[in-house]
Amino acid sequence: MNKRVGEYLMDCLSTAGVDKVFGVPGDFNLAFLDDIISRDDIEWIGNTNELNASYAADGYARMNGLSAMVTTFGVGELSAVNGIAGSYAERIPVVAITGAPTRSVEQAGKYVHHSLGEGEFDNYRKMFKEITTAQGYITPENAQEEIPRLINEALAEKRPVHLHLPIDVAMTEIEVKDAYQLPEFKAQDVSNYIEMVKNKLNSASQPVIIAGHEINSFKLHDKLEQFVNQTHIPVAQLSLGKGAFNEENPYYMGIYDGSIAEENIRNYVDNSDAILNIGAKLTDSATAGFSYEFDIDDVVMLNQHNFKMNDTEDQDVTLPDLLEGLLEMDYVNDADYPQYKRPKAGQYELTNEPLTQETYFKMMQDFIAPDDVILAEQGTSFFGAYDLALYQANKFIGQPLWGSIGYTLPATLGTQIADPNRRNLLLIGDGSLQLTVQSISTMIREKLKPVLFVINNDGYTVERKIHGENEPYNDIFMWDYKALPAVFGAKDDVKIHDVSTSEELKQAFETIKAYPEMMHFVEVKMAMHDAPHKLEAIGKAFTKQNS
Amino acid sequence: MNKRVGEYLMDCLSTAGVDKVFGVPGDFNLAFLDDIISRDDIEWIGNTNELNASYAADGYARMNGLSAMVTTFGVGELSAVNGIAGSYAERIPVVAITGAPTRSVEQAGKYVHHSLGEGEFDNYRKMFKEITTAQGYITPENAQEEIPRLINEALAEKRPVHLHLPIDVAMTEIEVKDAYQLPEFKAQDVSNYIEMVKNKLNSASQPVIIAGHEINSFKLHDKLEQFVNQTHIPVAQLSLGKGAFNEENPYYMGIYDGSIAEENIRNYVDNSDAILNIGAKLTDSATAGFSYEFDIDDVVMLNQHNFKMNDTEDQDVTLPDLLEGLLEMDYVNDADYPQYKRPKAGQYELTNEPLTQETYFKMMQDFIAPDDVILAEQGTSFFGAYDLALYQANKFIGQPLWGSIGYTLPATLGTQIADPNRRNLLLIGDGSLQLTVQSISTMIREKLKPVLFVINNDGYTVERKIHGENEPYNDIFMWDYKALPAVFGAKDDVKIHDVSTSEELKQAFETIKAYPEMMHFVEVKMAMHDAPHKLEAIGKAFTKQNS
Repeated sequence: MNKRVGEYLMDCLSTAGVDKVFGVPGDFNLAFLDDIISRDDIEWIGNTNELNASYAADGYARMNGLSAMVTTFGVGELSAVNGIAGSYAERIPVVAITGAPTRSVEQAGKYVHHSLGEGEFDNYRKMFKEITTAQGYITPENAQEEIPRLINEALAEKRPVHLHLPIDVAMTEIEVKDAYQLPEFKAQDVSNYIEMVKNKLNSASQPVIIAGHEINSFKLHDKLEQFVNQTHIPVAQLSLGKGAFNEENPYYMGIYDGSIAEENIRNYVDNSDAILNIGAKLTDSATAGFSYEFDIDDVVMLNQHNFKMNDTEDQDVTLPDLLEGLLEMDYVNDADYPQYKRPKAGQYELTNEPLTQETYFKMMQDFIAPDDVILAEQGTSFFGAYDLALYQANKFIGQPLWGSIGYTLPATLGTQIADPNRRNLLLIGDGSLQLTVQSISTMIREKLKPVLFVINNDGYTVERKIHGENEPYNDIFMWDYKALPAVFGAKDDVKIHDVSTSEELKQAFETIKAYPEMMHFVEVKMAMHDAPHKLEAIGKAFTKQNS
Repeated sequence: MNKRVGEYLMDCLSTAGVDKVFGVPGDFNLAFLDDIISRDDIEWIGNTNELNASYAADGYARMNGLSAMVTTFGVGELSAVNGIAGSYAERIPVVAITGAPTRSVEQAGKYVHHSLGEGEFDNYRKMFKEITTAQGYITPENAQEEIPRLINEALAEKRPVHLHLPIDVAMTEIEVKDAYQLPEFKAQDVSNYIEMVKNKLNSASQPVIIAGHEINSFKLHDKLEQFVNQTHIPVAQLSLGKGAFNEENPYYMGIYDGSIAEENIRNYVDNSDAILNIGAKLTDSATAGFSYEFDIDDVVMLNQHNFKMNDTEDQDVTLPDLLEGLLEMDYVNDADYPQYKRPKAGQYELTNEPLTQETYFKMMQDFIAPDDVILAEQGTSFFGAYDLALYQANKFIGQPLWGSIGYTLPATLGTQIADPNRRNLLLIGDGSLQLTVQSISTMIREKLKPVLFVINNDGYTVERKIHGENEPYNDIFMWDYKALPAVFGAKDDVKIHDVSTSEELKQAFETIKAYPEMMHFVEVKMAMHDAPHKLEAIGKAFTKQNS
């Protein structure tokens, strides 16, 4: 059957589960966009700019398992690299497609717009090599090998890939031999590693699992929980990857974040004689500046492309294979451990005093519904929210490794459009909102109904806590935030809330619950220097790290 | 004298003429920002995001001759690469400084936030190699060699350079031996080339100069005009580099843009037997898809690092040296040529009918004042504005080679802050405005007074003319544009204008002239498919190029 290369690419993406494609039009991708908008199984989501598109694609992939975005050569793809690099760091599979000048223009070395004007065309491809797990230059001849290879690499590594697609190639018809089929990954035998781990556990008196973000990336939640239920090893969770483990499970202990963790969990983990690091990465922001007191060399690493125990290392093994292996392990722990205590409801007073960060997060705890998707921006929002007690079905999204401020607003566009019926809560601050604010208009255009909580506290609080508490570079210019939805095209489909006290926040919560069919925009005013106590602590750790 | 490396860097930039530094704070640059804000001779201009900062830095450099920007490692610097690549393509000198993790964090390969989380720290530096003319990793030991070298490279090449500045290095004191001094560039003897050019001119009957953007980059306007006044060779100007030649000079013929140029200039240039291409680049957008009819191999190329005539090539020679050489040439042309006819004033009727693009630009022609800085966004605005007749002192800024939509709004922040007393006119459309809209708030915060003309015609018109005239991907969501200044913090310091007819545009012009001390925001409604005729023609050329 004959298909244009662009059509074939979309067929493959559809088979891989993609039903929305994000991006911005440009003259080197326009004709290819026709092969997107003509489909019933895929919808084109135009974005206000490419950075916002890349963040939206990241958010969508976190829900959906894979995403795709289309930009134009040079000006478009380079505006997306920050988002793509973030997806690489945090292991989110995004297929980044660049519509490019024709092969004949490239071969002739023409001075075309969007090039650097010197007849070279490979500069941007070289840049993408640094931040994607695989790259390909698509031609009619290689399309049926390269496109499946690249999608499969994204799925295997949970990382972005880059497709350079000259516009003439996208339009060229090829004879499609076989329809793309989802890859079956061959399992590697890891029984020898599992035996080693079991031996270590058998001689341990205080074993623990540290779970992290790769569990989310590879969607291994069920397998991890099954392993825990079989072995009774308690689980501590990093903020980088919150949601990796079911916080309602009796073997859940809570968040481990180094020196600032709750004392009982900190003592348990720091003094453990068998730490299994499963899909987790002990980064500075997840550990309050590497403030763990255990010996990192004694930790058993079970990560994607990294099994490490003592002197045994394997950098080929995959995390899914390691999890499969763990399920075969015949071991049961009987040591005591500090079980997680879920916070009680109503631990705050309703007043007309200025709202504090502490009360805000306590009230948010009570507001969360069991199926909510919660996005927390790297700043006061994330450092307050990662201690929230989740329900099993909650999805929690932050970006603590990459930490690009502004990420979560467009990411909410992506998560919400992946499943418009699920309630999405975004917790963000004013400084971050300003970076990517125009994506609110895309949410309104798409008739999405997220709940946006925007803290207005007059500046970059996370930076204040690191350096320059009162310096002008940490101030931001005051906007009329509540007027944003109307400017961005909202009619009467967005409810605006103005919150300065706990009484008002309570009222806002009631209204949000009463009007689930509307988008809600909640401006939450709080004092400039108020911050969750964990942000204060991390800020100090980062100051030290920078000296 | 002992100075911190960061202080020394700022001393050098100040000596090189930088008095504003653009950027966004991040924890790997915060402490260094103290060494910026503490100065009297340099002002910190915080931006809403890094892409906007990079565009503002580009605009500032086009006025000032050099600019500097500061971002943070990874998330910050990668958001700026589109802007930096544009500065590279169009030869604008920007010193891009990345505040980075400490050397000890890097040497230990720590998993820190903003890294890719794998212990490597050179990925972003490799990316910047593709889009900057020189790069350096600053240490206390090399600071006094590397910082001057990099600034000098930016000045010599009129292109961006990248400084990787670990935050501990920025804070380290060094003994400064010699203050930085502006470089003196050694002149190369080019008399043999000039002799060749003279011989060609002597045997020519229809000589012409094509002038372009490198004249603007190297600020060689006076020398070019002096050469023309001496030799009487008429000048055609590319849209890429409009402003390179004084349009009030009697030897000016007008814009040459290939097949769509005015017939008399097109015939003159296409049939010329001695074309001197001085600082110009014959790109697709400047020549309506390479539609010149002369033989490109017969053109004498006098460009930065490119002298070419017949088989003689020199890729070391500089454009300033070539201009110096030309001034020594003993030659006078006596051929006739079609002199530029400046448009007459008042070539339109004031009506209450819907405003057309044609009338808009005719009225704009009459509105321009002799000292205005005019920025025209790549879209209907640029393709309409590049035919405007300028005065000698006008400065005209577009980005037709790089062509990144959204560029001119933050660029206007940069050009206006470079000289707050000069009137800046921005011509932009709605689709472009949406990409970088938040920079309006920075203009308001800085109390700048540009005049912003925003065409509201419901979509990406430039894309419609290339492909998908009525396709949904070229639609944009309708905003309440006139409400933007108030949302972004304007009080009564911005005048809003609502224009749908020529009568209303006339009224807006009057009010703008009457209130020069205010910012003006003019929403100009025009029909969706209306476009300057040159855009229609270029659109067709690009469609063909993509097939």
